[in-house]
Amino acid sequence: MLTLYYAAGTCALASHIALELAGADYAVARVDFSRNEQRSADFLKLNPKGRVPALQTSQGMLTETPALLQYIAQTHPAAGLLPPADDLFALAQVNAFNSYLCSTVHVAHAHGRRGYRWSDDAAAQASMKQKVAQTMGDCFALIESELLQGPWVMGERFSICDPYLFTLSQWLAGDGVDITRFAKVAGHAQRMTALPAVQSVLAAEQAAA
Amino acid sequence: MLTLYYAAGTCALASHIALELAGADYAVARVDFSRNEQRSADFLKLNPKGRVPALQTSQGMLTETPALLQYIAQTHPAAGLLPPADDLFALAQVNAFNSYLCSTVHVAHAHGRRGYRWSDDAAAQASMKQKVAQTMGDCFALIESELLQGPWVMGERFSICDPYLFTLSQWLAGDGVDITRFAKVAGHAQRMTALPAVQSVLAAEQAAA
Repeated sequence: MLTLYYAAGTCALASHIALELAGADYAVARVDFSRNEQRSADFLKLNPKGRVPALQTSQGMLTETPALLQYIAQTHPAAGLLPPADDLFALAQVNAFNSYLCSTVHVAHAHGRRGYRWSDDAAAQASMKQKVAQTMGDCFALIESELLQGPWVMGERFSICDPYLFTLSQWLAGDGVDITRFAKVAGHAQRMTALPAVQSVLAAEQAAA
Repeated sequence: MLTLYYAAGTCALASHIALELAGADYAVARVDFSRNEQRSADFLKLNPKGRVPALQTSQGMLTETPALLQYIAQTHPAAGLLPPADDLFALAQVNAFNSYLCSTVHVAHAHGRRGYRWSDDAAAQASMKQKVAQTMGDCFALIESELLQGPWVMGERFSICDPYLFTLSQWLAGDGVDITRFAKVAGHAQRMTALPAVQSVLAAEQAAA
């Protein structure tokens, strides 16, 4: 039994969808960001990083979305969320895509709401916020032109890249970026939204919020 | 034959060391950041992200340090740079560590030199630069207390986490953080520096610079 610590509206959605798609035996535990529970002593004991997602497994806690996604896929191979195990280049492409999302795209987005991580100055934080539409637009322009093969990120084969891209694409509107600028990304989001597993996860997160 | 596109002083060092430790058949191609070659039309054709590292393989180009490290390790299994293939939890721990380095630690560092990525305002960039010693110090405090098992990152077993941690720990002095605050990190850097493969790679990068 796995337990996913998550908060609605965060990148934990990607792991939540992956667990559902994998047919995993899992539960979710909501961390209430409005009450700053992620910084509470109890939660910091579970995850000293004070972030979500965190995945409790029988062997211990795991963190970081790319690691969780690969773990969920590899421990549920029947779900086919990764390329064949002997295709190491394809696996590397999957990991490169997810690494770009966590280290560049998510980071670009975070400057709109969590600029305090990198500056104590309110004017500097406002200045970062102002640039988010541009940086997120640039990231998704690269995804659109270079990375998203279509119909899924890795082409005909669905993978753990897809729930992660879907999760970050849901942030575009709030970041002041019109998703329809990116036809392939917009189509991808529509295909994802049509999946029963995605609908089920979104409904569960909304009901708990 | 693999070709690693790198620049001295960047995170490409981690992949360079991993290739050497793996005993890979590889060449390196230096990208001259002082001439902004990473943004040249020729390089952007190779890697539209305009960044290093990039690894040319017979199947195509790969980017993003965590993806390169896992690929190098998995295609050179005799080097033992990963946990046993059936230990998916241990692999996830490796990936979680490397994901933290790329998405949080490297990002903290980048605010000291590349603040223009997230703000167009010179005062804001200066403000970000001012906070780097604190954020890098916080990151390495977490690594010291929670993540670095010792003597290697994953304990007795050397892994692809080690060249990556070593690479980022080399940035501490320039970021205004005294590495001796972190006894385990400092010891790790010393053990890494003593490895012939690391000495060879550092000498090669210095000779080419």
